[in-house]
Amino acid sequence: MAGLGLAAVQAAERRLRGRLHRTPLLTCRGMDRLAGRRLLFKCELFQRTGSFKIRGALNAVRSLVEDSERAGRDLPRAVVTHSSGNHGQALACAAQAEGIPAYVVVPHTAPHCKQAAICSYGATLVPCEPSDTSRAETAAHVVQRTGGVLVHPNQDPAVIAGQGTIALEVLEQAPEVNAVMVPVGGGGMIAGMAVAIKALRPDVKVFAAEPRNADDCYQSKVRGELTPNLHLPDTIADAVKTSIGPNTWPIIRDLVDDVLTVSEEEIKLERVGRSSTLPSQSAAERRAQAMPSAALEQPALAAGVTAAALSRQRATRLVWERMKLLIEPTAGVGVAAVLSEQFQAIPRDMENVCIVLCGGNVDLSSLTWLTDLPGKAE
Amino acid sequence: MAGLGLAAVQAAERRLRGRLHRTPLLTCRGMDRLAGRRLLFKCELFQRTGSFKIRGALNAVRSLVEDSERAGRDLPRAVVTHSSGNHGQALACAAQAEGIPAYVVVPHTAPHCKQAAICSYGATLVPCEPSDTSRAETAAHVVQRTGGVLVHPNQDPAVIAGQGTIALEVLEQAPEVNAVMVPVGGGGMIAGMAVAIKALRPDVKVFAAEPRNADDCYQSKVRGELTPNLHLPDTIADAVKTSIGPNTWPIIRDLVDDVLTVSEEEIKLERVGRSSTLPSQSAAERRAQAMPSAALEQPALAAGVTAAALSRQRATRLVWERMKLLIEPTAGVGVAAVLSEQFQAIPRDMENVCIVLCGGNVDLSSLTWLTDLPGKAE
Repeated sequence: MAGLGLAAVQAAERRLRGRLHRTPLLTCRGMDRLAGRRLLFKCELFQRTGSFKIRGALNAVRSLVEDSERAGRDLPRAVVTHSSGNHGQALACAAQAEGIPAYVVVPHTAPHCKQAAICSYGATLVPCEPSDTSRAETAAHVVQRTGGVLVHPNQDPAVIAGQGTIALEVLEQAPEVNAVMVPVGGGGMIAGMAVAIKALRPDVKVFAAEPRNADDCYQSKVRGELTPNLHLPDTIADAVKTSIGPNTWPIIRDLVDDVLTVSEEEIKLERVGRSSTLPSQSAAERRAQAMPSAALEQPALAAGVTAAALSRQRATRLVWERMKLLIEPTAGVGVAAVLSEQFQAIPRDMENVCIVLCGGNVDLSSLTWLTDLPGKAE
Repeated sequence: MAGLGLAAVQAAERRLRGRLHRTPLLTCRGMDRLAGRRLLFKCELFQRTGSFKIRGALNAVRSLVEDSERAGRDLPRAVVTHSSGNHGQALACAAQAEGIPAYVVVPHTAPHCKQAAICSYGATLVPCEPSDTSRAETAAHVVQRTGGVLVHPNQDPAVIAGQGTIALEVLEQAPEVNAVMVPVGGGGMIAGMAVAIKALRPDVKVFAAEPRNADDCYQSKVRGELTPNLHLPDTIADAVKTSIGPNTWPIIRDLVDDVLTVSEEEIKLERVGRSSTLPSQSAAERRAQAMPSAALEQPALAAGVTAAALSRQRATRLVWERMKLLIEPTAGVGVAAVLSEQFQAIPRDMENVCIVLCGGNVDLSSLTWLTDLPGKAE
């Protein structure tokens, strides 16, 4: 996307400073042993509203407010968006903070907890069908009706720049980072992060992680042209059902090093049979000595239980059990990608890999995917 | 307990330095609003082995090793303990690190995940009946058979001193703290912490939190004499079913300011009808401005949803949903106590209250208590 550069991300960082959390970067020796690398978990599940989306949403709303003030105009009459949940919640929160009405178009299939959270920020919910077309059309209608401003969940340049601030924090928190693994839905987060990383640290690899059932980013990279999902994707990673778009695609095309796709099983279950790739205890211990103080270690992994037992763990559930972090399945996509055979094949000198745990808005009323599947930790 | 003083806790801190994590102290504006105070959550669920218990266990094992080295003797032939799970896991981990065999007596009713974790550290499991008597007798038998050393889960002075290191960290991380709220089972954690706190900062109040169904600490304080639970307590907080004992009781009697008991409902559900005690948004916002950068904010609370809706949230589940921290129900005991009417009646100038989130070893295969009860967040 022409025009979006490092300066926009740095401006977003200044704009958001003191308004949002600088989320911690946690480590876990047990996860390191599984991955055969040192993993740095950027905990955006701890971000305000429970996901990274507030970065982009607040940057967009603050930019609108600053523009109005600079021009001596009234504030926008409303902000409008469509979102599977987390961006809607974030925009509602940002708008409420600035005293601007918010209208959020939400697929009626979105998790209930996310819809409830949007309402709790005083926004108006507008239901739509769960398709990209229905979302866009309904949002356009609301914009027309309210005279509001559309803040697209992932194609708005201010949103992309806001998400990019994650990368600035990571580079500062862990200058030793060799790669980042970022779940991709509409691509706002990875585009913003790629812009910042490739400008400041072109040596750091940028990987996208995507459910195989929603692999528009992968298909686009393979074909060299924007290739949206043809059908509504069926994936537990509800926050990445959407497709990348005209503003994120050129950035992804030019700056993202590779796209890894993972199956639904891998998001929930970790891949089977990787015992040969597990590093030796001593190598893991050597790495562990350099861990920051907040490093986590969980029992089964520390004790060298069989790889077969570990391999039946779900990636999302693995993070719950080993790290005690309540991530949503979409955040598990990045974890599954780093644990995938494909990623394991990458030489180990790419040692320090940052995974963005993008959110933690789990509907605890519907945990059947967690408890009903085979392969429980027994 | 004669002889256990600040020096023992400080020695434990030196002994454990670099071997364990200095766990973070997290905050959450939404929880502050609910409590009407500033809450500081000491995240022992992130500690090695998933609970604080490794502090005491490793201090005990390291002390044994140092004693042997000093005396030019062989290492102990084994370490033995009885534990509902977390201490067993911790002792197994500590013993493995020092190359000493470990035998762990576990009630056959202990959560499966905790038993599996003990095994994964290479320890030998010895099942017993779920009563204090059976635990003690079985452990004594194992000691006799193996020639090992018993490391009592909560009455061993080295264990108590090790748990006390939590207090040293809290006082350093948050000198503004006015009170600590500590779940009590055998009382090792609260005894160790009370020793350190009352020596260094006698102005800081020390509160014990206990399930009403396992209220031996409360009864002991009321009667002024050690009063163990008569029957096997029935509580979801499995890690605090045990009673305080001869070494922790005198410390608790002399140094603990008060004991709060909470019902099973309060551990899982938050108390109903506290709308009048909710602080105004502006007061909460003022406090929030002083928050550390890792402060968390979660949506529904930030938006001023009704107290009635909040009051139906479970205390444990509340922490899962709002803070994205996977605490075990025993850690919810302290949260429930701070949210109780009894604690609400304490003047608000006791502003900064530290709650020890003692562990995160949840058996994810048995979440029915979470999903089956009424009062889901809808």
